[in-house]
Amino acid sequence: MTTIKDVAKLSGVSMSTVSRVMNAPESVRADKREKVEKAIRELRYYPNALARGLISKRTETLGVLIPDVSNPYVSEVIRGMEDAAHSLGSNLILCNTDRNQERMINYLKVLKEKQVDGIIYTSEPFTADFHKLFEEFNMPVVLASTQSIEYEIPSVKINDEKAGYDAGMYLIRKGHYKIGMISGPIEDPIAGYTRYSGFKKAMSEILPMETIDAWIEFGSYRYEDGYEAMKRLYKKQPEVTAVFVASDEMALGAISYLHQIGISVPEEVSVLGFDNTKIAKMCIPKLTTIGQPMYDIGQKAVFKLEALLNSEELDELRSYLDHTIVERDSVKELSRKLYSNW
Amino acid sequence: MTTIKDVAKLSGVSMSTVSRVMNAPESVRADKREKVEKAIRELRYYPNALARGLISKRTETLGVLIPDVSNPYVSEVIRGMEDAAHSLGSNLILCNTDRNQERMINYLKVLKEKQVDGIIYTSEPFTADFHKLFEEFNMPVVLASTQSIEYEIPSVKINDEKAGYDAGMYLIRKGHYKIGMISGPIEDPIAGYTRYSGFKKAMSEILPMETIDAWIEFGSYRYEDGYEAMKRLYKKQPEVTAVFVASDEMALGAISYLHQIGISVPEEVSVLGFDNTKIAKMCIPKLTTIGQPMYDIGQKAVFKLEALLNSEELDELRSYLDHTIVERDSVKELSRKLYSNW
Repeated sequence: MTTIKDVAKLSGVSMSTVSRVMNAPESVRADKREKVEKAIRELRYYPNALARGLISKRTETLGVLIPDVSNPYVSEVIRGMEDAAHSLGSNLILCNTDRNQERMINYLKVLKEKQVDGIIYTSEPFTADFHKLFEEFNMPVVLASTQSIEYEIPSVKINDEKAGYDAGMYLIRKGHYKIGMISGPIEDPIAGYTRYSGFKKAMSEILPMETIDAWIEFGSYRYEDGYEAMKRLYKKQPEVTAVFVASDEMALGAISYLHQIGISVPEEVSVLGFDNTKIAKMCIPKLTTIGQPMYDIGQKAVFKLEALLNSEELDELRSYLDHTIVERDSVKELSRKLYSNW
Repeated sequence: MTTIKDVAKLSGVSMSTVSRVMNAPESVRADKREKVEKAIRELRYYPNALARGLISKRTETLGVLIPDVSNPYVSEVIRGMEDAAHSLGSNLILCNTDRNQERMINYLKVLKEKQVDGIIYTSEPFTADFHKLFEEFNMPVVLASTQSIEYEIPSVKINDEKAGYDAGMYLIRKGHYKIGMISGPIEDPIAGYTRYSGFKKAMSEILPMETIDAWIEFGSYRYEDGYEAMKRLYKKQPEVTAVFVASDEMALGAISYLHQIGISVPEEVSVLGFDNTKIAKMCIPKLTTIGQPMYDIGQKAVFKLEALLNSEELDELRSYLDHTIVERDSVKELSRKLYSNW
């Protein structure tokens, strides 16, 4: 393997000059610099990042802890992270935790060994146990699509409670008042309880608070959960005219159940999804949904980690990016007549 | 930072004994070993993977070059890769090339600097230019979901020509004979030309070879391509009763066009997809499709690279995994009566 010594020899300068050409080229006289650069090209010398990492204490590598890369939401967030890392000259090491704590501890050990500069923890609630782990491993961490209220950890996500509220208000403005919800698990403080309570807040503007829970079912964000929850909701509330569903995947499951029992979307029941993953525009009917800026969340999380690594002051600890309402074909506006009947 | 020296000091043994405890514990007397392990725990000593990489010449890190992690096909292949790497104690560095050669060269340089043990190149045709690059960088490479016929490079994929043939024969067996295809680009030697020629071979068993091309349109695997290609195909061949589409995404685009002009799938036109990505079972109608073992392709590619790195003999240079036909709701069997009319 070619070393810095070989480059120094061929270009007739000292090793420290070669090193300066690589790390602070402006400090080297132009004629010397050109000689060194020529030698680097001729010898096809690739500076040894491992050796450099031992000196500079930066490896330009970030660890990303995610539940599962094959989840369409997660894979779009990662795409944003990777582009941001690439623009900063860093790389991502990908770790699928499967929400398995043992696997995660194992990854943290390896990432510590490989001396990644920092870690981005994605999509899962950040518990006290995890906080202890990160403290113990003493690694800079930024949270993406999740946050911690108890601990002072930088994070990037949308305002899920506001998004749940906007979803409910959107359906109300479309003339619905028999509105159901398929929520994530109420124990999930990130995307479950928040969207649920935002939705309830919106509903409480037209209905007595105590009646709302009778219109809410729960599922774990998956297609099958949406199917089953819609079945339960429809049996309880066959008069429902619109459903807000806390993930696009569950929304497709809900539509599948309605389709199976011969109820057309949106003619008879409107369905509003959440996320705006790629599938939302590929299905029939195309899904009206609350859009999360997935790419931007990933990108911003990496930029935040970089700022942390450079000891820059963060403009804000917890960042909330804007969600949008993406209107397609799965929500129908009820006529004013029907609305005024109420 | 804690070093091996600190561990040696606290446990009262030499540094070489500490090193042996970490690398060949069976060669160290039990009492000494326990002392060292205790010191490692107490000091929270994490062996320095960078320093170890300089000695062992292995970093237990693999580079993965993919077109785009947010593509649902790619993200399932990566999931298989990452699980395999994890089981071998390795990690993946993720690189989105966007099919951009400059970006790819840039990644290769960085991966070389970081001294990854090897590279998995995924999903894109492996050209002579790329081959030259990999030769120059002198890095072990395995191809996943692609292959090289000209060069002797290990690869894992399905037999796409056979899959195209099986797709055509499946529709024929279902009683169809007015069968169209939406193919990938014919210039794509991996998933384009192969599936196209396999399909033509099947059709040639019931039709004169020269008539078949009139029933084939092309697109670049995307939803929008499928929509546009279906529009062209339907205008040319309004009698079509079944279409084989070379990706699930394009199949959904084709279904969207048919739905828009009031033609129902599968009652009037059957649609057979390709890949069996997660979306295939979430849409209406659920897609009948040629299933690729995406996870297994990723997993096997990593195991192959590991064998290469260990200088084991490969059982085969180019591996072909089995595809399957996943029957759901988008293909209808035509009655024998209709079939015998022909």
